[in-house]
Amino acid sequence: MKESPGVVDLLGVLAYAELSAFARMTEDAASLAPSLADRAALSELALAEYAHFRLLRDQLAELGADPEEAMSPFVEALDGWHTQTAPGDWLEALVKAYVGEGIAFDFYREAAKRLDPPLAKLVDQVLADEGRSQFAVERVRAALEADPVAAGRLALWARRLVGEALSQGQRVAASRPELARMLVSADADDQAEISRMFARLTEEHGKRMTALGL
Amino acid sequence: MKESPGVVDLLGVLAYAELSAFARMTEDAASLAPSLADRAALSELALAEYAHFRLLRDQLAELGADPEEAMSPFVEALDGWHTQTAPGDWLEALVKAYVGEGIAFDFYREAAKRLDPPLAKLVDQVLADEGRSQFAVERVRAALEADPVAAGRLALWARRLVGEALSQGQRVAASRPELARMLVSADADDQAEISRMFARLTEEHGKRMTALGL
Repeated sequence: MKESPGVVDLLGVLAYAELSAFARMTEDAASLAPSLADRAALSELALAEYAHFRLLRDQLAELGADPEEAMSPFVEALDGWHTQTAPGDWLEALVKAYVGEGIAFDFYREAAKRLDPPLAKLVDQVLADEGRSQFAVERVRAALEADPVAAGRLALWARRLVGEALSQGQRVAASRPELARMLVSADADDQAEISRMFARLTEEHGKRMTALGL
Repeated sequence: MKESPGVVDLLGVLAYAELSAFARMTEDAASLAPSLADRAALSELALAEYAHFRLLRDQLAELGADPEEAMSPFVEALDGWHTQTAPGDWLEALVKAYVGEGIAFDFYREAAKRLDPPLAKLVDQVLADEGRSQFAVERVRAALEADPVAAGRLALWARRLVGEALSQGQRVAASRPELARMLVSADADDQAEISRMFARLTEEHGKRMTALGL
C-alpha cells in the first residue's frame, strides 16, 4: 500500500462519517418527521450518504487497505458525536443535518486539500451536497416564519452542535497525528495557518446560520 | 381513480411495510451488527427495501392516489409490530429479517393474487428476496454451529414474531375490509379457502425455520 497512513485515515473517517450519518438520518426520519413525505425526503438524503460510503469503501479496498480496519479508529468519536447531539424534534434534526454535517464536511475538505488529484476528486464527490442544504434551509425557514420564537432555541442548538463537533474533532486529531498533519502543512507557519483555517470554518458556519435565518 | 380501494390499500400497506422495514433494518444494523462489514451488509438489504418503497409510491401516484394517504391507515399496526418485535441482539435481528419479513411477504403475495397482471408484476418485484434469505440463513446457521444452545431461544423468538404478525394482521384486516377481501374471493367457500391459505403460510414458515436449522 503506497498511500500514507494519513490518507487511509482520512478515507476511513469519511467512510464511517457517511455510514453513521446514513443510519442516524434514517432513524431521525423515522422517529421525528412530521409527515410520511418529509420522512421519505430525509430518507432519500440518508441514501445519498450511503452511496458515498460505498465509494469510499471501494476506494480503500482499491488502495489495498481493509475498510473495516480503516474505519474502526473513528467509530467511538463519531458515535459519541451522534449520541451527544441526538435531536429532540424535527427542526433540531434538520439543523443537525445542515449545520452539523456542514462543519464536519468543511473539516474534511480542509484535510483533502493535500490529497493527490484523483483522490481529491473522489472526496469532492463524496462531500457534494445532494440537496441536503436546500431541503433543511427551506423547511427551517418556513418553520421560523410560522413560529419566530423557535429561533433562539435553534441557535443555541446549532452552537451546541459546533461545540460537540470541535470537541470530538480534537479527540480524533490527538489520537491520529497522521490525519491531523493533513490539516496543516509541516513547512508553513503552523499557528498562523491553523488560525486561517479556523477563520474559514467559522465563516462557512456563519453563512449556514444566516441561510437558516438564525 | 379506477382502482378499487382494496388495491390502493394493498399498495399502501406494502409501501409502508417497505419504508418501515428500511428504517428498522438500518437501525438494527447500526446498533446490533457485530462488525462494520455485517453492518454494511444489512444496510445494503435495507436499501433494497427502500428501492421497493419508491416503486410502490410511484405506482400509487400513477393510479391517482396520494401515497401518504394510502400508507397512513397502516402506520400504527406496522409500527406496533416493529415495537413489539425489537430484536435484542444480532441473531434476533437476522431471524426477524428472514422469518418476520418472510411471513409478512407471504401474506402480501396472497393478497396480490387477485391483482391485474401489471400490478401483480410490480408486487412480485417488490416482494423479491434480494439476498435477504441467504444473508440471514448463512449467518444464523454458522452461529448455531458455534453455539447450538442458542437454537431454543431463537425458535421461541421466531414463534413470537409469527404471533405478533398474526395479531397485527388481524387488526389491519378488521379495520380494512376491502383489503381483507383481497385475501379471499367472495364467491368461493370462504372458510375452506382461508384454511388453505393458512396451510400455505404455515408450510412456507416451516420451510424457513428448517432452513435456519430451528
